[in-house]
Amino acid sequence: YLYIRVMVNVPKSYLILFSTGAYTASQGINCIREDVASYIERRDGGVPADPDNIYLTTGASDGISSILKILVSGGGKSRTGVMIPIPQYPLYSALISELDAIQVNYYLDEENCWSLNVNELRRSLNEAKAYCNPKVLCIINPGNPTGQVQSRKCIEDVIHFAWEEKLFLLADEVYQDNVYSEGCQFHSFKKILYEMGPEYSNNVELASFHSTSKGYMGECGYRGGYMEVLNLHPDIKGQLVKLLSVRLCPPVSGQAAMDIVVNPPVPGEESYSQFIKEKESVLNNLAKKAKLAEDMFNKVPGVHCNPLQGALYAFPRIFMPSKAIEEAKAHKMAPDMFYCMKLLEETGICVVPGSGFGQREGTYHFRMTILPQIDKLKILLEKMKDFHIKFLEKYA
Amino acid sequence: YLYIRVMVNVPKSYLILFSTGAYTASQGINCIREDVASYIERRDGGVPADPDNIYLTTGASDGISSILKILVSGGGKSRTGVMIPIPQYPLYSALISELDAIQVNYYLDEENCWSLNVNELRRSLNEAKAYCNPKVLCIINPGNPTGQVQSRKCIEDVIHFAWEEKLFLLADEVYQDNVYSEGCQFHSFKKILYEMGPEYSNNVELASFHSTSKGYMGECGYRGGYMEVLNLHPDIKGQLVKLLSVRLCPPVSGQAAMDIVVNPPVPGEESYSQFIKEKESVLNNLAKKAKLAEDMFNKVPGVHCNPLQGALYAFPRIFMPSKAIEEAKAHKMAPDMFYCMKLLEETGICVVPGSGFGQREGTYHFRMTILPQIDKLKILLEKMKDFHIKFLEKYA
Ligand SMILES: Cc1ncc(COP(=O)(O)O)c(C=O)c1O
Ligand SMILES: Cc1ncc(COP(=O)(O)O)c(C=O)c1O
Repeated sequence: YLYIRVMVNVPKSYLILFSTGAYTASQGINCIREDVASYIERRDGGVPADPDNIYLTTGASDGISSILKILVSGGGKSRTGVMIPIPQYPLYSALISELDAIQVNYYLDEENCWSLNVNELRRSLNEAKAYCNPKVLCIINPGNPTGQVQSRKCIEDVIHFAWEEKLFLLADEVYQDNVYSEGCQFHSFKKILYEMGPEYSNNVELASFHSTSKGYMGECGYRGGYMEVLNLHPDIKGQLVKLLSVRLCPPVSGQAAMDIVVNPPVPGEESYSQFIKEKESVLNNLAKKAKLAEDMFNKVPGVHCNPLQGALYAFPRIFMPSKAIEEAKAHKMAPDMFYCMKLLEETGICVVPGSGFGQREGTYHFRMTILPQIDKLKILLEKMKDFHIKFLEKYA
Repeated sequence: YLYIRVMVNVPKSYLILFSTGAYTASQGINCIREDVASYIERRDGGVPADPDNIYLTTGASDGISSILKILVSGGGKSRTGVMIPIPQYPLYSALISELDAIQVNYYLDEENCWSLNVNELRRSLNEAKAYCNPKVLCIINPGNPTGQVQSRKCIEDVIHFAWEEKLFLLADEVYQDNVYSEGCQFHSFKKILYEMGPEYSNNVELASFHSTSKGYMGECGYRGGYMEVLNLHPDIKGQLVKLLSVRLCPPVSGQAAMDIVVNPPVPGEESYSQFIKEKESVLNNLAKKAKLAEDMFNKVPGVHCNPLQGALYAFPRIFMPSKAIEEAKAHKMAPDMFYCMKLLEETGICVVPGSGFGQREGTYHFRMTILPQIDKLKILLEKMKDFHIKFLEKYA
């Protein structure tokens, strides 16, 4: 699909500007970085974006990995602390461990729709200062696995906190096009940073990430992505470019795919109406499925599911009977892992236990995507409900 | 070009087996790993290859980086030493420094066509043992920047040495299809390891790397590659798979490109004759240009160039007049950097100073590719000769 779009839609001049067969500049192809900057300006209502601050990456994973590599340093008590949400997307814990940095957990507030509370950030930071040097604050918005969309007020609070504490903000915004709930809206950290005035926009260090893998296109196989990096010290920027150039460049097809994502058909273009139809159909379907999953899970006794405001996942909490917890322990398994294995064995449905993402001690969850077609998703949810009721009976 | 081949040549079943739009298994698409294994078996005259030991990568760079990450550990005197050739391809020194490992240099023998001498390996290893724990031995064959092709005898010696010293062998064989000199032949480490018998093939740990970026296809932009890893301890293999899965998977188009490289048209297929014609034309031209560069450089006074046996580069030695060296030092520049900058300013020709790759103290080189078309290469070499003669006169 994307190949065809590349060939049908892209201005002819591109065929001259780059070849898919050659290495490109390590930071990415110039004209694509310009398109990304224009996209960001449109998205953020005119806040300026500089192509020089844009880096094309091999998926968002690669960008996040590169930035963390640049920021992590020191040994002993001066080891770099990296604050991450719990529950988190496990790329973060893995990279922190690869880099021998210190993982500093802050907990999302499940009682308040997985929102991010600055008091909790402060608690977490202050405790961490005793044993490491916390320098980086990671936010995933919309959230994976938790599916929340942070409010404008919350993002302002986080930016103020980062400014106060001189933390480098890492905003994982790969689900920026996946927002479903009424009254929810995606606010980019970049935009709010600028709206808070020059004291913030000239000082707070921010890297934000996007990807071809999510949104309404969901082209994961291309491994396209970009990051926009603000207020990076010129010396550090030099280091970053050096680091990237060692690995030569991101795959050209991924760069081209990123270009397609930020440069969709516009009114007047031949494929515009087809594009809008497909886009709306994908997003409307996801919104329906988000609501469906939330409603179904909340009808099941012993399950609670926050609204799926964005991203592609449900992350319901399951209240496990103590007999089930005991049996899990007898099998040397985390209770939610035990639950997910039973579900798999009995229904063939595979979901990921909450312990893979982190969760408050004594709470249990699992993550499920809402990607299956709506009819299949209904059947799936029915089966999970039946399984859960039987599970409760068995371990009552 | 490659896209067309993918679409025209690949068996129909592939269109079912994978989609370019989805993540794949982290180790790479199964059927492509099977094709890679078959390729290796054909290349190595029947020595068996197991698809389970094949990992598809985002270019060879990514494979080399992953393997080194898995092998490097320890602090202080037990920091991991990684032996690399000097001159080297700078990915190696950069990765070693990223990983906080110790770079252990062994020098290639310029007087003997940049061959690899086991006595020099032994000297280097023994000296390194005093300050680190040397665990890895990297070989680049055919060489970048040096363009040599190692003899069968030399590879046997290296394998025996690695076996004796329990070193993990890292064979960078991305130029395996780029061999030009009469009497030279590419021998894979894997093949020779097996031919040396089970004591070696069951014990020596070996990772070998290949890429879509070189050969006669030279499709750099796809970032396709593979590595074959032998005798890796199962626990370490588990770690490797975990490491790879954090980053999800290599780009699918790169995996497909790798498949094309290992699976070229065969007799009877529609595009076979066209393929052979193009392949031979590319390789014959490279061979001609390799000879041309060698001959031209050796006609210039104060320049010596070893035969370009393989890869894509000339790495001539330049004998710099002491006045030029002094002037370079006055400008705080490495003498060969000074030379290359002057060349760039006066002719517009850009080559890379030897100091970027490492060279014996007091010797000076530069690296030039032989990729320009033959007519252009002739003009280029003439201009370089004229520049060099004037340079010698100026600093006589
Ligand atoms: C929150 C989050 N960040 C980053 C990524 C990485 O995406 P990619 O590397 O495919 O762009 C993912 C993928 O699932 C994700 O959920
Ligand atoms: C010796 C050597 N190894 C590895 C690479 C990396 O190639 P790639 O990552 O494009 O496969 C190169 C590229 O120039 C090389 O010369």
